[in-house]
Amino acid sequence: MLGIDLGATKVVAGLVSPEGKVTAEADRRVHRNDGPRGVLATLLEVAQGLAQEGRRVDAVGVAVAAQVDSESGRVLYAPNLRWRDVPLGAWLARRLAVPVLLENDVRSATWGEWRHGGHEGIGNLACLYVGTGVGGGFVVDGRLLGGACQAAGEVGHLTVVAEGRKCSCPNRGCLEAYVGGWAIGARAREEARAHPREAAAMLERAGGLRQLDATVVTALARERDPAAHRLMEETGTWLAAGAVSIVNAFNPERLLLGGGVLEGYPDLARSVARAVARRAQPPAAAAVRVGRVRLGAWGPVIGAASRVRDRLEARGPHGGAPRARGRSRR
Amino acid sequence: MLGIDLGATKVVAGLVSPEGKVTAEADRRVHRNDGPRGVLATLLEVAQGLAQEGRRVDAVGVAVAAQVDSESGRVLYAPNLRWRDVPLGAWLARRLAVPVLLENDVRSATWGEWRHGGHEGIGNLACLYVGTGVGGGFVVDGRLLGGACQAAGEVGHLTVVAEGRKCSCPNRGCLEAYVGGWAIGARAREEARAHPREAAAMLERAGGLRQLDATVVTALARERDPAAHRLMEETGTWLAAGAVSIVNAFNPERLLLGGGVLEGYPDLARSVARAVARRAQPPAAAAVRVGRVRLGAWGPVIGAASRVRDRLEARGPHGGAPRARGRSRR
Repeated sequence: MLGIDLGATKVVAGLVSPEGKVTAEADRRVHRNDGPRGVLATLLEVAQGLAQEGRRVDAVGVAVAAQVDSESGRVLYAPNLRWRDVPLGAWLARRLAVPVLLENDVRSATWGEWRHGGHEGIGNLACLYVGTGVGGGFVVDGRLLGGACQAAGEVGHLTVVAEGRKCSCPNRGCLEAYVGGWAIGARAREEARAHPREAAAMLERAGGLRQLDATVVTALARERDPAAHRLMEETGTWLAAGAVSIVNAFNPERLLLGGGVLEGYPDLARSVARAVARRAQPPAAAAVRVGRVRLGAWGPVIGAASRVRDRLEARGPHGGAPRARGRSRR
Repeated sequence: MLGIDLGATKVVAGLVSPEGKVTAEADRRVHRNDGPRGVLATLLEVAQGLAQEGRRVDAVGVAVAAQVDSESGRVLYAPNLRWRDVPLGAWLARRLAVPVLLENDVRSATWGEWRHGGHEGIGNLACLYVGTGVGGGFVVDGRLLGGACQAAGEVGHLTVVAEGRKCSCPNRGCLEAYVGGWAIGARAREEARAHPREAAAMLERAGGLRQLDATVVTALARERDPAAHRLMEETGTWLAAGAVSIVNAFNPERLLLGGGVLEGYPDLARSVARAVARRAQPPAAAAVRVGRVRLGAWGPVIGAASRVRDRLEARGPHGGAPRARGRSRR
């Protein structure tokens, strides 16, 4: 199976074995100015390149940082690529002549973790990814929760401060508006504007206020720069509030944390685990284990490939391909 | 089927038809000083009274305002009754010689709504009950989400104000700590202490500061007393934050609101619906319909009876009774 992770600036692809191992890989840059057709050309190039190395590609799973409709194979809304309603699944399926399944990237990664991260026996798994944005997913009894329009798992948009900071979505006070990479950058810049002296080390490392972002903050927080460290401690408080919400409302057996911000500042995972143990409802706290994802950045690729494989196997050889083959729509 | 709702001060029971109608009913007072054996005696009396009227009771579902383990039939923790680990299901099953299934009360009510509230075709249903406490449940593809220890759906303990008001649970800033009946009472008393003149109408209606509770607040808010109205408007803001969280994270097709506080101040449901439409993620907001529960106070009784019926039917005549029959445990 071929798994593809289509992000805002990069395509990463991998051939994925039934055991969830990446056996060959490729990547390319993309830019939103490429437009859907340009990105399609890049995806085809990557897919055909990997296929030409003699490996069989019998289906393709595509993880997209977007809201997608898996059933119809459409990218409904990809803010970073500035796409609306692009039938990417059907395009790819027609050109590659294999079944294609589209899925949201963090939902793919959640599926990948459950399937190949060593948690397959887990009846209730929750994943929380903290990158530039914040997202997640839930696997219950071996099924990825979909919701009414495949948007279940948007835990970045749990309100943690009613009437708090403006989010990128229509709400205020979302978890993402405090702990997402973009929000950490914004909070750091506010801090630097208000207290330039305390923020001197961050400003110097960034090379200026405008370049001050989450990467700089997490790096300096690891080095125990007081201002950066304080920002990340506050980040931990909000992330803990979100994690406690997830544990209380979903009662998972396992809560896995991942994403670039977490990787940049692993202390966050520890403070979340402590907060859950202390502050979640006692039975839910006792039932959950908080840990970190195991597939890391390969999660979306491995998850997308597994998901199309699992779909095909569930439908059997004559059970019909995933919907994106050809132009069938529900 | 017999459904029983065991609350902190009252037992309400009903014979429930396969269509979810209550065909005979009974109730008794209980007090936590009765102890588990005393409450058991009351439950038996109620059940036998209804059975003696010539109706056949072939199984009993019991909804308890408690954390329960349905599989073993144990009430694990009922703070209002001050019970810990009471094998109520087995006791009842032995004395009544029929299968007994225990369930948490709001989870029962959620099941009842899905089964008999006219939402049975709904793939993703969320219920949010605002009474003295705040709870809820989720039905996904015809199954009540259980979680790791049957605590899924505790949406009253979504954090809506990180580091906010102390909750009755170990967390701070939970939805319940702002909108639960006990919290509305506490907020009103704080307000009355700080601004006794503005709170004069509430204090007079209550007959004193200590008697000022959510019932008084909702009644006066309906009459547009400015202080009570403001308290309930603020309640609406927090409730909206929680509802938006539920819609974003679960992506339900239907979000149903119920419980005593909602019934006491129906404007809350309208402000929640408005907030969800405006502030939830646009696809999730477009996919959900916010409404009110239809079974009202009978929800737990109807739900508990349906749940035991559905369990028995799923297992078939030889499939074994719900676990609380006799002393079998997982």
